[in-house]
Amino acid sequence: MNRAELIALIKRKRNMLCVGLDTELELVPSYFANESHPVRAFNEAIVEATHDIAVAYKLNLAFYEALGVDGWCDLEATIAYIRSRGNTFIIADAKRGDIGNTARKYAEAFYDKLGVDAVTIAPYMGRDSVEPFLGRPGKWGVVLGVTSNDGARDLQFLTVDGGEQRLFERVMEKAASWGSVEDTMFVVGATRAEVLAQARTAAPHHFFLVPGVGAQGGDLKAVLDAGLTADGGLLINSSRGILYAGKDADAIPAARRAALHMRDVMALKLRERGII
Amino acid sequence: MNRAELIALIKRKRNMLCVGLDTELELVPSYFANESHPVRAFNEAIVEATHDIAVAYKLNLAFYEALGVDGWCDLEATIAYIRSRGNTFIIADAKRGDIGNTARKYAEAFYDKLGVDAVTIAPYMGRDSVEPFLGRPGKWGVVLGVTSNDGARDLQFLTVDGGEQRLFERVMEKAASWGSVEDTMFVVGATRAEVLAQARTAAPHHFFLVPGVGAQGGDLKAVLDAGLTADGGLLINSSRGILYAGKDADAIPAARRAALHMRDVMALKLRERGII
Repeated sequence: MNRAELIALIKRKRNMLCVGLDTELELVPSYFANESHPVRAFNEAIVEATHDIAVAYKLNLAFYEALGVDGWCDLEATIAYIRSRGNTFIIADAKRGDIGNTARKYAEAFYDKLGVDAVTIAPYMGRDSVEPFLGRPGKWGVVLGVTSNDGARDLQFLTVDGGEQRLFERVMEKAASWGSVEDTMFVVGATRAEVLAQARTAAPHHFFLVPGVGAQGGDLKAVLDAGLTADGGLLINSSRGILYAGKDADAIPAARRAALHMRDVMALKLRERGII
Repeated sequence: MNRAELIALIKRKRNMLCVGLDTELELVPSYFANESHPVRAFNEAIVEATHDIAVAYKLNLAFYEALGVDGWCDLEATIAYIRSRGNTFIIADAKRGDIGNTARKYAEAFYDKLGVDAVTIAPYMGRDSVEPFLGRPGKWGVVLGVTSNDGARDLQFLTVDGGEQRLFERVMEKAASWGSVEDTMFVVGATRAEVLAQARTAAPHHFFLVPGVGAQGGDLKAVLDAGLTADGGLLINSSRGILYAGKDADAIPAARRAALHMRDVMALKLRERGII
């Protein structure tokens, strides 16, 4: 899905909600326990209940890899199901990053074999680890800029090169020069809105994928105030806040209510800013 | 495999060769083309021909993920085969790194589900992204220190905090404090021996996993001179230099010859340094 299509989708659905399918076998509602593939069945029910609302889905690879071959089957099946329900943007949250020839294999794995629209990428190995994910029309490399976890402080906020610029700002500056706003996004954590504002200064026109709303503590309105651009410019992820919004037979209805609530908060802000 | 066992294995086998199974379906010798699982069959033949020599095997996840579910099956089967042949150290070259709860899932995927001894980890997200891989007896987190690709220059060599210390040195200093020499290794690229020597200064007692010997241009003797410790302290990887040492029916004999050659160079240096 290219940038123009993504922006149109956001305007049409009046939100930029990304539902994070960080599905844990142990947390799948008991309601699905007797299914032959509980993770897949739960994912499909979540997608069925939210695909008219959400703009994007994000699959966290760790949760599938922890189940081995079965998990990889669930991953492929879930992606196929999301595609079958129509117009949404699909992100593999994989945080890959390796030397050029290996990065090309990862791009093949995610873009061609799994068929997702976007892959998250770790930037530590530099340009040749990121470039194989860029320059593919309708495909997106989502580079880690600044993250929302405690450990973000260990490296990302170090000043570099004897100046005032911090590592995450250098990463965003560099990565922005490797690709364009048509093929590069940034992961920007949402636990502190002022950091999001600094990242927005570093990359005024790029789309940001914002995790950390909900379970990780980011406040949705503050994120919108700090990160919105004239095009929207954000995909805001909620995983546990939607997947585990309710229990047992209420799990799926509660997930839909949680998604609708986020949609409404976003729609209000999009109208307030004249974006829709 | 714990540190004492790894050191004993290196001394017994008189080398620290790690054979990199970056197996590409398109490059598997035609000899294996009619097998139902060519990658797996080729891997098994390589392992059969080298397991009495090599200390370790490293599986590059990208090459398996590019084949989807089939690739993940090949990965599991190859690991099971390596285990069945006895005493070697198995590394998943996965370069994972994510927030704590996700990193725990990755540790589960690699240590428990795949059953490898070690996983390579990208450090950009900091402490909570690395710690779930540490503190498990006999298991190892292998943190990216300094890599051998061109892009390494983009970030890893930036000075940080207004001082002289470079990012890769800060990464190694920090990560060394999160774990111990019993559960933490570093990836240290081998294209320039003086960089390896600087990394050795930053972490005098940790094991280093050294890729980049062979196809990536590192010179084996220079690597040994710059990186060896009294315990050995190195795992030196060769992937393409062994996998694709010969063609067609000579592929497997040539792989063994290439491994033996590297073993002999290493054994000589280990004796010269009084390690064996």
